[in-house]
Amino acid sequence: MERLDRQMRFVAEIGRLKGVVRQTVLAGSGLNRPENSAEHSWHLAMMALVLAEHAPPGTDLAKVTAMVLLHDLVEIDAGDLFLYADEDQQARQEIAERAAADRIFAILPADQGTALRQLWDEFNERQTREAKFARAVDRLQPMLENLTAGGGTWQRHGVTADQVLAKVRLIEDGSATLGALARNLIAQAVAAGIIAPSPAA
Amino acid sequence: MERLDRQMRFVAEIGRLKGVVRQTVLAGSGLNRPENSAEHSWHLAMMALVLAEHAPPGTDLAKVTAMVLLHDLVEIDAGDLFLYADEDQQARQEIAERAAADRIFAILPADQGTALRQLWDEFNERQTREAKFARAVDRLQPMLENLTAGGGTWQRHGVTADQVLAKVRLIEDGSATLGALARNLIAQAVAAGIIAPSPAA
Repeated sequence: MERLDRQMRFVAEIGRLKGVVRQTVLAGSGLNRPENSAEHSWHLAMMALVLAEHAPPGTDLAKVTAMVLLHDLVEIDAGDLFLYADEDQQARQEIAERAAADRIFAILPADQGTALRQLWDEFNERQTREAKFARAVDRLQPMLENLTAGGGTWQRHGVTADQVLAKVRLIEDGSATLGALARNLIAQAVAAGIIAPSPAA
Repeated sequence: MERLDRQMRFVAEIGRLKGVVRQTVLAGSGLNRPENSAEHSWHLAMMALVLAEHAPPGTDLAKVTAMVLLHDLVEIDAGDLFLYADEDQQARQEIAERAAADRIFAILPADQGTALRQLWDEFNERQTREAKFARAVDRLQPMLENLTAGGGTWQRHGVTADQVLAKVRLIEDGSATLGALARNLIAQAVAAGIIAPSPAA
């Protein structure tokens, strides 16, 4: 029962992701509270399911789904970092996330821990079709929430159009269709005054 | 773009599941708040991923994952019903959930709406290996939360051991290993006074 016991300890441990608070504020349906990383991950998995046809041909969707489900588990130890954090913060976060991955995936039986850790590494390295599509969905979802909120984290942190558009390149990298959609949504948001225009060069 | 537009409207609509509150109270990590149906669905999908080997041979795990991700979407309209509700309540809930499924899956392009609705129907009909395993995981997770909480909904609603054990049969039906695990956990919980013993016959 050692194997099942490890799996059940992992199942209990990951429940803590429900308590990791993200910068994104949920504005739809009168919720008006920060999103947590567990429900965010659920939303990404549903997006992967219904937007699958916009991934490049041959993309393994089961792998994408597993990646988005587990990509934020490291936040149980490392917390959520705001997408527009500076380079120093990002470097510290990367170290904290690797330590978290070492700890959390090691709760599982060794073969499973290794397999899930490889998926997490693959997501972070962004080299495969699956990782790129998973990343695209992970970038698109908070944009949609910010648009629903009429500005959200963009306004709260003074993020300008050029910074948002830099993130759109990651979406285009995973899906041409979703990239074009995001670019279009952002143009509309700038026109509507929801995103501040890029500063003059 | 009609197709993508429908998909994006669905993605926005389902975000409301984050606002559907369940009876289960999250006690781990000092959360002490009701669980919502989106994060619950995420937890089930992760359980399907790491407990896959306990499903009967030949079970299509991608299908199980899709089922658990979408099984509660109808609660956006119908709300969450407590597992031990009476038959009248259950009958009313069933009607409300069917109406919700009609509305919500129809937001998608017709082919996708039909496919997801079929998955939802399959989950509810509990005839296939995939539906039975998905159901097993859906029954096991709140038990684990109640055990962590030291009683949770069982104590709040005066649920007794015989009632909990009746639900265990649904777990056994989907996975012999997980059924045995649940039976064992419940015996321990009765011994510890977390679940009230069955009333004398």
